[in-house]
This record gives sequence, structure tokens and C-alpha cells, in this order.
Amino acid sequence: MLERIRVVLIGTSHPGNIGGTARAMKNMGLSDLALVAPRGEARSADAISRASGADEILAAAPIVTNLEEAVADCTLVVGASARSRTLPWPMLTPRALGERLSQELTGPEARVALVFGREDTGLTNAELQRCHAHVHIPSDPAFSSLNLATAVQVLAYECRLAWLASQEGTVTATIERQQPFGIDWDNPLADHGDLERFFAHLERVLIAIDFHDPDTPRQLMARLRRLYLRARPDQMEINILRGMLTAMEKRVGRSPTARHDGEHS
Amino acid sequence: MLERIRVVLIGTSHPGNIGGTARAMKNMGLSDLALVAPRGEARSADAISRASGADEILAAAPIVTNLEEAVADCTLVVGASARSRTLPWPMLTPRALGERLSQELTGPEARVALVFGREDTGLTNAELQRCHAHVHIPSDPAFSSLNLATAVQVLAYECRLAWLASQEGTVTATIERQQPFGIDWDNPLADHGDLERFFAHLERVLIAIDFHDPDTPRQLMARLRRLYLRARPDQMEINILRGMLTAMEKRVGRSPTARHDGEHS
Repeated sequence: MLERIRVVLIGTSHPGNIGGTARAMKNMGLSDLALVAPRGEARSADAISRASGADEILAAAPIVTNLEEAVADCTLVVGASARSRTLPWPMLTPRALGERLSQELTGPEARVALVFGREDTGLTNAELQRCHAHVHIPSDPAFSSLNLATAVQVLAYECRLAWLASQEGTVTATIERQQPFGIDWDNPLADHGDLERFFAHLERVLIAIDFHDPDTPRQLMARLRRLYLRARPDQMEINILRGMLTAMEKRVGRSPTARHDGEHS
Repeated sequence: MLERIRVVLIGTSHPGNIGGTARAMKNMGLSDLALVAPRGEARSADAISRASGADEILAAAPIVTNLEEAVADCTLVVGASARSRTLPWPMLTPRALGERLSQELTGPEARVALVFGREDTGLTNAELQRCHAHVHIPSDPAFSSLNLATAVQVLAYECRLAWLASQEGTVTATIERQQPFGIDWDNPLADHGDLERFFAHLERVLIAIDFHDPDTPRQLMARLRRLYLRARPDQMEINILRGMLTAMEKRVGRSPTARHDGEHS
């Protein structure tokens, strides 16, 4: 279970925090780290010093340019966020996140990403809107900003507790571990790449039918992202939605390229 | 409750860890720090930098020469320790510690100390034997040594969760009933009638664009119902979906009656 939990750090300024993150991960038994456009030298002496023995996690961590690349194969993407947002999003406590992991990480394809933003500005709204849910570490509202590696430690700790609980293997735990929606499901969940291709397709169609004007978006795509991400669509459901969009395009006369792309389900 | 929890650091080598401890404490609402014979300059530039705003906790922390002085007024002393000891001692998990706090911190004199040892050698046996109980943070036995400030963060986090739980009581149930997604939502949920009108509208449009044939339904509407009902759409989301359907109808030329109905959002 723990090997299928990925920690994603976006735009980290201080290499020491990357090293501290690697140490916290290794302490808790996590190993999959991805770095998105770090602003410092990810493997600097400071990073290696703070890793204090977790060097192999630093060495193995891919450095990519955006969130998409880091989480394309993940079936659940959770972003660390302060509580209040202009557009409310499904919110988990760290404990509730831990409790969900054993249910989420069942099928061979299941993979969870925990996404952490910049030390100074956190995650952008665009990044937050690519997450199924947000997780907030309870903190004093008057002094709420945790050190990055420390925040990773708290969530990694809850991941480890959930894993330890799953090892105890009570009958209920075993049953729940196979039930992302409380029952055995008939199709694997869509991954992040499937979902982003659907959202791109959806936006093209909404523009084509004059329902959506990208110049005055009025949070339309954000609200639709929130709705569909909340539902955790499976692969067949995404194929149905993509098929509906392609059928609509044919009626309103889409360009061949878009129609072609629309067939990549 | 939180103001009566004291963090005690013994023989700390790296001032940065003292600063990091102050920050972690302030994040979680703790304020009582005591330093026993620190080996570095407790208020160095590195300590103040890592405290990143929790300077007042550093400034207020007494520096004493031994554990006795630091915990003399405490009614419960818990020492952070690795699991295995030659002499077995009452052992708490961080969670069990949190659960004990609300029981421990009742009387006006009650005060709990959380004692953390040296970065390299931890607490001595003499120090551990001055503790009522030991607490061990579950970690990978192959890489079990957490950074000091990070270990403080984990225990302080459990203290805060225990405090939050003690604040809640019966109000929680009511709040949760108003928070279907874990937080206050920005719109009321759609009711059954809203949803049924949406599904009827959706089916008309899918027939109009030749995507759905009611004579050979292939569970299409059942799958779409399952998807949208899982998401628990709010009223604005349903209005957006109805608006999209109406826009599509206008492009494919619906009958006036259906278009009229489609405007009932």
C-alpha cells in the first residue's frame, strides 16, 4: 500500500525542505517522490544533509515541469491546502485521508498522489482544481503555515497508521479495502490523464455550442471540474461522457482534428 | 488544555531544531517550551529563522540544567522513545497519548510534559525512568529516527486533535449534517425533483443527438444516474448542467415544448 502513495512537491524553494521531505517519507515507509519545477537545486548539499540517510529517495525522484506529468497515472489526487477557498472543494482531514487510503489502494492500477505547494504561496487555484479533494492539517488559524517537510511528515504519519491498521486485517477492513464506493465496483477508476482529456473535450464542446466563453469564464470549468471530480468517474463512465461529447460535436460540426481527438477515449 | 502541555527538549545540538520545534508548537496551538542544557545557542540566527514567526516561544523558553527542573510541576511526564528498551516501560502510541490528555488535564494543577532527547542519542535511561510513560511514533524499523522538530510536530498534532475533539461534543453531528463534503458548501444540494428533471432533460438531449436509443438502452441512463447521483450535485451545478443541455438543444433544434421545459431550472 505505502509504495503506491506518491508525494508531489511543486515549486519548492528550499532544497532543505526536499531533503526533509525525503527523510520524513522514509521514516514512515514511503518512497515515491516527484518534484515539479523545484526553484532550488533539488539535490544540493543542504537537501542531502536534511535527508540524513534518505538519499536514495532524492536520487530516484523525477523532476518534471508540471503537475500533470507528476500525477497522470494517479487514481486519487489530494492537494494540501488551507481551509478557506473562494470555491469550496471536497475537504478531508489527515485522519479521514488515512482512513480512505486502504479503500482507495485496492486494484493493481490504484495510485494516490499527495500534492504539496510552494513554501510561500502553496498551490495555485489551477493546481487545486486538478485535485479530487483537498486535505487541511488542523492548525492554529492565527499561525497556520506549517514547514513543508513537517506537513509531509503529518500526512505520511497518517498514511503509516492506516497501513498498520490494514495489516491487522480484520474482516471488515478486508471487505472495505475492496470497496471504493462501499461495494465492489464494476469498472476501474479513470486516472488523472483520462479526466484531463475529458475536461479539455468538454470545454471545447461548451465553446462550440456558445455556452462557455473562455474570456468570461465565471468559474464555469472550475465548477464542472469540482462536480465530476467529486463523482470519481470510472473508465466506462468517462468513455460514455466522451462519446456524448463526440456525438454533440458531430451535430454542431466540429473540426476534424477535434473530432479525431474526441475519439481518444 | 493546550496551554498546559509543555514540550521539553534535552541536550539539543542543532539550534535549527529548537526553532523548528517552536514553529511546530505554535502551529498546533502549544506555547510552553523548556530547554534542558541545549548544546548549541538556543536563540541563534538559525533557530530564529526556523521558528519563522514563533520567536516569542523561543524567547519565553526557560533554559535549565536538568530534567527535574523542567518538569517539577508536571502531573504527567511522557518521554519520546524508541520502542525497545531493556527494561519495559508503560508505552503509549501518539494517538493514545492524545486520548489520555483530556482525562489528564482536568484539575487546575494538572500539567503534562512531553520530553524529547538528543538528536544523536535520545533520552538516557535515567531520564526515561523519570517518565510516567514512553511514547513511540510508529516508524519504519529500518529507518526509525525522525528529525527532532518533526517528532515534536507529530505529538503536537495529536495534542491538537485531542483538544479539538474535546471542544466539539454533540455539535459535531449537526455540523456534519450540514457539511456533505466535509466543509460548508456554497450552494444548497439539489433536491430529488431537481435531479429527476435534469435526468429527463438529459435523456431527451441524448436521444436528440442520436447517442441514446430508448429501445436499446444498454443501461446508459442507469450509468449516468449512478455517476451524477454519486456527486450529490448542488442547485447551481444542476442549473449549469440544465443550461448546457438547453444550449445543445438550441443547436440541434429541439421542439418548442421540450425547450420550454428545459428552461425550468
